[in-house]
Amino acid sequence: MTDWAAFAAELGDIPSITDRALVRQKSRDFFWYSPILKPLLNHKSADLVVCPRNEADVVATLALCARHRVPLTPRGAGTGNYGQAVPLEGGVVLEMTGMDRILALEDGLLTVEPGRRLIDIERAVAGQGWELRMYPSTKRTATIGGFVGGGSGGIGSVTYGGLRERGNIVGARVVSCEPEPRIRELRGDAVGRVNHAYGTTGIITALTLPLAPRLPWTDVVACFDDFMTAVNCGRMLALSDGIAKKLVTVVASPLPQYFRGMDVPAGKHVVIAMIAKHALVGWEDHLAQFGGTEILRRSTAEAEGNPEFTPVYEYTWNHTTLHALRADKSVTYLQSLFPADRALALVEETFHAYGEEVMIHLEFQRVAGAVTCSALQVVRFTTPERLNAIIADLRARGIMIANPHEYTLEDGAGHKRIGTEQPAFKREMDPLGLLNPGKMRSFVADQPPPASAS
Amino acid sequence: MTDWAAFAAELGDIPSITDRALVRQKSRDFFWYSPILKPLLNHKSADLVVCPRNEADVVATLALCARHRVPLTPRGAGTGNYGQAVPLEGGVVLEMTGMDRILALEDGLLTVEPGRRLIDIERAVAGQGWELRMYPSTKRTATIGGFVGGGSGGIGSVTYGGLRERGNIVGARVVSCEPEPRIRELRGDAVGRVNHAYGTTGIITALTLPLAPRLPWTDVVACFDDFMTAVNCGRMLALSDGIAKKLVTVVASPLPQYFRGMDVPAGKHVVIAMIAKHALVGWEDHLAQFGGTEILRRSTAEAEGNPEFTPVYEYTWNHTTLHALRADKSVTYLQSLFPADRALALVEETFHAYGEEVMIHLEFQRVAGAVTCSALQVVRFTTPERLNAIIADLRARGIMIANPHEYTLEDGAGHKRIGTEQPAFKREMDPLGLLNPGKMRSFVADQPPPASAS
Repeated sequence: MTDWAAFAAELGDIPSITDRALVRQKSRDFFWYSPILKPLLNHKSADLVVCPRNEADVVATLALCARHRVPLTPRGAGTGNYGQAVPLEGGVVLEMTGMDRILALEDGLLTVEPGRRLIDIERAVAGQGWELRMYPSTKRTATIGGFVGGGSGGIGSVTYGGLRERGNIVGARVVSCEPEPRIRELRGDAVGRVNHAYGTTGIITALTLPLAPRLPWTDVVACFDDFMTAVNCGRMLALSDGIAKKLVTVVASPLPQYFRGMDVPAGKHVVIAMIAKHALVGWEDHLAQFGGTEILRRSTAEAEGNPEFTPVYEYTWNHTTLHALRADKSVTYLQSLFPADRALALVEETFHAYGEEVMIHLEFQRVAGAVTCSALQVVRFTTPERLNAIIADLRARGIMIANPHEYTLEDGAGHKRIGTEQPAFKREMDPLGLLNPGKMRSFVADQPPPASAS
Repeated sequence: MTDWAAFAAELGDIPSITDRALVRQKSRDFFWYSPILKPLLNHKSADLVVCPRNEADVVATLALCARHRVPLTPRGAGTGNYGQAVPLEGGVVLEMTGMDRILALEDGLLTVEPGRRLIDIERAVAGQGWELRMYPSTKRTATIGGFVGGGSGGIGSVTYGGLRERGNIVGARVVSCEPEPRIRELRGDAVGRVNHAYGTTGIITALTLPLAPRLPWTDVVACFDDFMTAVNCGRMLALSDGIAKKLVTVVASPLPQYFRGMDVPAGKHVVIAMIAKHALVGWEDHLAQFGGTEILRRSTAEAEGNPEFTPVYEYTWNHTTLHALRADKSVTYLQSLFPADRALALVEETFHAYGEEVMIHLEFQRVAGAVTCSALQVVRFTTPERLNAIIADLRARGIMIANPHEYTLEDGAGHKRIGTEQPAFKREMDPLGLLNPGKMRSFVADQPPPASAS
């Protein structure tokens, strides 16, 4: 048994949290979107939360954990949905939000500590004419380290593809978990070793990302009577390279009717988009072609700055599920990627096959250079068996599912495949198997614990 | 017969040119790239060149032409290659380069007079953080009006598609050719009525275009031993949405060996690209994956500013032909568009089918949202019959050819199809058929000339 008072004392002046309620709060994320994960993870808690102020604090904490054989799970803002930040075996939660400095910004290449919130990155770089290439719908809460460590893409992926697309993350500093931690500088493709690895392959202390040149975005929403007309409108908008855009989402009725702050008539389907202000003429022509009715237009910056408004991106990606959950506690969700060459047919097929049991919203994005869409379908949950049957059926139709009701990298991966690179890097960076243990199911520590290191 | 002295007098203080040598010079473009067009157009000349200073001058000139039934052909810098600016029936050449003011720039939406050179637009908007979405390889000479009136795309089309892609031009002011000219404001899709119409459907006096946010571009060139490896490298680069780029060109040996100022070893094929400075890590990973050897890296701005250097875009698109022509007067060129789904197979097939008779360079670009490539093949010309046989063969293989050896819109169109919109608009804007006569072959004036208007 670890003597936590002694452990905390060994941390010296590194801030930590021992209050049980707060420790338990910092041991959770949004896994409760899943009725499968909820009972599995609900009781999990760390023993101690450590709050590093800088890389030296991270190194000291990792050294201590390695010497005491204490598990350590890193955490950003805890906005993940698969228990990415839940410490399955207790131990330390490393709360990274204190490490939030911008380290460098030159010619659009940003180096930043992992704990900085995405919206605070955007505020800091806007003056120099830059913005994030992409962010999740939790932009106003989530951190960049959490996004890279546990996310995959989001608003902006319609232009830049996902985080794993070559070039979207170009550098990372990573600390190993050993009695004498080493610091590795990853560059280019090698950053894939820590992207979407839930912190199992080392602790990120800095990230280098190319930014997008800043554009004045406009939130727009349009209504449609017919779902497939809305889908075609969204898809063709995603394909329109002359219309600068950050987001293209299609939401099937009845989901838009759950949206607080957006007054969508019953039965209507919507296209939600963020269009550059100087590209709105193209949007208008596009909307006229498909016969949509615009029901909202507002500057995204204004929506972000005024508490009366909600930026439209907070109705998309996994925020859609949140809006539905507020009204109906029984719903949960899926994560699907439609193959680019059959996307429309599969969307139409599954729209009709399930009715309101599986409510569709589509997030258009580029994958390997082609426009396709993913769906984070909102599902009226009945039993785990029925949920698994739906997943099996969607997979049988050719839709790729990343199962958000699994907490391991391997089981949840689906199209977010884990590959061989991360397991190999974990062996190098976490030989004792202490980093977020249980999340990389296939990993087995290759050396027996020594008699005692403490 | 028109009394040109009287006509010039009626122009009042509108500048004009009557010097025969200069009038003849201003009646030509780069049609001589084509051995077919050269004998057809070589002797054509206007009678008078009129140099409007503003829209009022354009209106006055068009009124005068309509009253005297004098043909009028607009001209930018004369960098076209199909005789777009050659006055087939003499009359007036309207030299637009005096109308070069920037009228507005707000949030990246530029309104500019048509005679401004593309490079001078970039210089003017750079300070506010903008650049042109696309430009031809003649950027340092050509005007925006000439590009819109006679071009179709170029450097930047790998990201934004061609000029005709919805959203790339969002406004135009156009003057009709009538005794009392009317001014039409076109918006959005309607700008297609004057885009690539050679000035046959009205005279553009202002254009409104959304700009791209400015990025610090870097010229790069890499060598390959194997052509198809270079093609794959270029194609996958075009598909890599995480690597911000302005240009992706693949040039098959022996064309790179014609490039002055670029020392490409014999037998080597090259990939030429413009990559954002902050995206170079991605380029390096990409190049390593395909085994290319970088032989040039230089800031594009530095190359544009230093007369010792040539920006790499001046080796691409139709500048490739120019480099070959300098060394070998017998060559000419073609314009091909490869269908996106069969591009690689058709490139490989035609590379082997023709050897050095048809030398390939590929310009990657987005068309309707998909990445494909066009080729402006450099052809060792022997006879018109052989050239037509090559065109027929390429078309039979499924490659779309826009024939640059035709001077009419219809015959040259190919994939740059003319449609029905431009003929309808011409009837409205040029009822007397005086604008660039002979270029819209299908047009017949619908009213007989009155007895005399002069």
